[in-house]
This record gives sequence, C-alpha cells and structure tokens, in this order.
Amino acid sequence: MKLLCLDQHQAMATALSSALGAEQLPLEQRHFPDGELYFNLPADVSGEDIVLLCHLHQPNDPAMAIWFLARHLRDMGAGNIILVAPYLAYMRQDIRFQPGECLTSKYFAELISQAVDGLTTIDPHLHRYNSLDEIYRIPSRVLHATDAIGDYLRTLAKPLVIGPDAESEQWATAVANAAGCDYLVLNKQRSGDREVAIDVPDIRHYQQHTPVLVDDIVSTGRTMLRTAEQLVQQGLPKPLCIAVHAVFAEGAEQEMRAGPIADIVSCDCIPHPSNRIATAGLLAPAINDLMDQIRRSI
Amino acid sequence: MKLLCLDQHQAMATALSSALGAEQLPLEQRHFPDGELYFNLPADVSGEDIVLLCHLHQPNDPAMAIWFLARHLRDMGAGNIILVAPYLAYMRQDIRFQPGECLTSKYFAELISQAVDGLTTIDPHLHRYNSLDEIYRIPSRVLHATDAIGDYLRTLAKPLVIGPDAESEQWATAVANAAGCDYLVLNKQRSGDREVAIDVPDIRHYQQHTPVLVDDIVSTGRTMLRTAEQLVQQGLPKPLCIAVHAVFAEGAEQEMRAGPIADIVSCDCIPHPSNRIATAGLLAPAINDLMDQIRRSI
Repeated sequence: MKLLCLDQHQAMATALSSALGAEQLPLEQRHFPDGELYFNLPADVSGEDIVLLCHLHQPNDPAMAIWFLARHLRDMGAGNIILVAPYLAYMRQDIRFQPGECLTSKYFAELISQAVDGLTTIDPHLHRYNSLDEIYRIPSRVLHATDAIGDYLRTLAKPLVIGPDAESEQWATAVANAAGCDYLVLNKQRSGDREVAIDVPDIRHYQQHTPVLVDDIVSTGRTMLRTAEQLVQQGLPKPLCIAVHAVFAEGAEQEMRAGPIADIVSCDCIPHPSNRIATAGLLAPAINDLMDQIRRSI
Repeated sequence: MKLLCLDQHQAMATALSSALGAEQLPLEQRHFPDGELYFNLPADVSGEDIVLLCHLHQPNDPAMAIWFLARHLRDMGAGNIILVAPYLAYMRQDIRFQPGECLTSKYFAELISQAVDGLTTIDPHLHRYNSLDEIYRIPSRVLHATDAIGDYLRTLAKPLVIGPDAESEQWATAVANAAGCDYLVLNKQRSGDREVAIDVPDIRHYQQHTPVLVDDIVSTGRTMLRTAEQLVQQGLPKPLCIAVHAVFAEGAEQEMRAGPIADIVSCDCIPHPSNRIATAGLLAPAINDLMDQIRRSI
C-alpha cells in the first residue's frame, strides 16, 4: 500500500504515511496558464494498492485531480484505490427544494464512485441521507472526530462543552462523553442526569470552567459568534471554538476573532492555521479495514 | 432545441441563441462558501435537445459544472446534449514526455464523452492527435476561425498577415487567403507565388500596410512580442495581434501592451476584453448539423 497526497497538506500526509506504515509516492503537480492541471508521478505503482489523500475544500480543482490521478493510476497498473477525503464536499444539496435544483451530492458521488474503489471520510454532512451508501456505489468508512476532540479537551482546565441549540445536543453529548466533562445545551442545561432550564444562577456555577463551543462545520461562524456573545453577557469567560471542518467563508475567521472568543481550534480535515487536532490516527485503522474489505471482495 | 449557458459570457450566449433560433434557458448558479457549485434550472426540459455553452478557460470549475448540469438534464428527461466549448481545454498533454506524466487530454475526453452526446469546438490544439475522435467517444465538429478572422481583416487598411516562424505558415496562408491579402512568413517571404528570403528592402515594400500577427493561442505572448520587436526594428509599423484563444497568462497582456504592438484583438472563444471577432455565426450551422447526426444515430 502506498500513499499519494493530492495537495499541499504535507503535515497530514506525513502523519498518515507513518500511521499506515505506507510509503508516500512522489508527485509533481502544477497548473498551466489556462488553469489546466499537470501531474507527474515518477514511481512504479504497478500492482500497488493506493491511498489517495485529498482535501475537498474548494472542491472542483481537487475533484478533477482525483479523476485524472485515479485514471492515471489505473493506466499504470495500480491495484485498489481508496480516496481519503477528510472533508467530503458536495453533501449539502441532498434534496430539490426548488424543482429545478441540481442534486450535486448525487452526481458528485457518481463521479467519485467511478474514479476510485473506496472512500474514507470524517463527519460528512449526512443531513437527509442516512448513509453514504444511498449515493456512493463504493464501500466507505465514515469516522467521527468526537474522540479526537475529546482527547484535546482533556488537555484543558475544566472544559464545559456548550451546544448552541437543541439540534447540537447529540454532538455536545458525544464530545463531552469523550472528554469526560460536563456539557450544557442552551435553553436547557444538563449536568450528569439533571436537566434544568438555563438561567443566570446556573450558568454562574461554571465561571471557573473553560466554555467550549463545538460544531461540525464552521462556515460563516455566526452561530458560534452569537452563542459566544450570549455566554459572555451571562458572565462566562470567552469560549473556545472547535470545528471539525474549518470551511470559513471569506472574512468569517476575522469576524469571529474580533468577537468574544478565546481561540479557534480545528481538526486537520481542511488545512487551516487553526488545525490543532490531528486525525491521521483515527483514519489509519479505518483505511486498513476498508482496504481489506475491498481486497476480499475482488 | 434550447440553449443553456454555463458561464457569464452573456453576449455570446445571446448571439448563439439568435443564430440557432434556440431559446436560452434560465439558470441560477453560484458558489457556496466552501466552493461547491449550486444550480437551479427553473424550466421544463423534458424531451428537449440541449446546447450547453461553456468556456473551458480555467477549466476545472466549468468541467464540474458540465458534469453536474449534464446529469441534471438527463434526470429531468432532456434529449440529446451537445457541449459547445469554443476553447477546448486539456488538449496540451497528449503524450507522456516523462513515463509518469498524466495524460490529462485522454482522461478529460473520457469525462466529457460520458457527460454529453456531442462536442463542437474551434481550433483545438490538435498537436499529436489527428482528430478529436482519437480521444473523444462522441461525435464532434471542429471549426476554424480563419474565415471569421479573414472577415475582420477585410475591415482594415491593407493588412499584411505575418507568420512568426515556419510552423505558422499554414495558419498565415489560411488567414491571408480568407482576407484576400498578402502574407509573409519570417525567414521567408511570399507574395502570390513568389518566395523570397526576408531582407530589409523586401519588408520595406510593406511600410504602408498594417502588419497582423495571428496565432491560435496567446498565452505568455512572448512569441508575438519578439516578432513585433523584430518587425518594428526593420521599419514596419507596430503590428496588430490577433488570437483565436485569449488565454493570457498572468501579466502577459500588460507586457504585450507595453511593447511595440498596435492592438490586441481576439475571437470570443474565451471571454476577454479583447474579444472583437464573434464566432456564433460559425458555430450555429455546425451545431445544427451535429445535432441532426446525433438524432439520426439513435
């Protein structure tokens, strides 16, 4: 098994190469003046199973790269190809709200399912789909960053996980359980088995804690920002914001950092200066397991 | 037959819609913050044959748009789909100069051949391929901008087409024939049937002419610039530069305009402020002809 990294996120490629015990293939890549991609893979891949690591943030350029490299690997006689896309793009449009809307999630899945033999990803936006199998025709492994975030929270003094609304409760519970800490969902508050409506005296119990806001995707950052303002108004310290996928719409990070936020921390699913939670250790066993399944199914 | 334009080149879409007598479909398109494409096509396309107009300059985003929209049109019950890509990207890498180079031309052709039923383009970079059929599995029409450029040259006072080197002779001949004017290929000079080696007295015959440099793709613009410098040194007026495909690498246009060049003019194959030669009239009959062929073959 060899690792091929399709972008500049070398830190994660090195970590994953080490966690998998898989050598990283050399790849020369650039753009021509008209925007065309160029690749040179100066390595013998004949008979090799390949792990293709690609970050699908701003996904159209990387998606074409996946298509080209997967085809090239086939032509060069490579074996099975697993795409590792820690952030899986095009999960957003999963229904036609307007009758003419394009179901990009389905058509993107068709493209990827043709290009590679398997897919590993972290916390994809499974909103109306129950499973990737509804749109992907290839076997996949879906991982959750909760344990990795939990491990990170254990390094902090008295973390208190806060869910901004009822929808985030499942997330907040899982992360707090992984960290072995309390959590609180706004509009209702829990500590152990007790369930209490939010009020100022209750929040005041947590003034010595480090409030932590957690979300899967941070895009505009408005939800986190508004929640942070609410917490600080009620007497809590500035919260730490943790995201699995650091999408950050233009200007969003600056806007957040200008607000009552202690810091922003993210998993390395999307390369970003805020990356402080590594996911290679989470990905490697799942990739090995998936590769075994694909080898057995041939 | 309906026209669907996948980019913001509305002038050409309007011209093509009129030349084809085909109504233009409304299309709402935008990007999400993570770079994902969104489309809404609020129209009944059931049973309609579709002409998909898309400029493939900076081709990765448009290529994904073609994939998504073609899939959407199928799901919505559309008939045959012809892609009109006046500039056909990914024709550059047609051979492995290094054993590990990725044959993007072939893999791009596989993608497009799956998405649509036919392809119409203008002066593609057929270097080592004799025909698009070597890589595209769908029928195509390849058009040449020579007549359109010739018509434009007829509006100028005494044009003299100049080919910068022997390789450009075929181009220069064709354009000069279309314009009914003289041409000259550097290192050798022709006027009618005479063939004369370049020297200063010969070039001086043309001091009252408008020198015109023509090329299929202008990317860095260096060839045109060096040729222009040579001509001016030898006593000719500053030449007009004409390109079929206005690729223009970053800074190239500024560099050209700072040199001894009278003006830059291009066909509208790639949207650019220098577009002054319309190709809709050239494309429309070929599209109709190709659509007829596809309908007959079903």
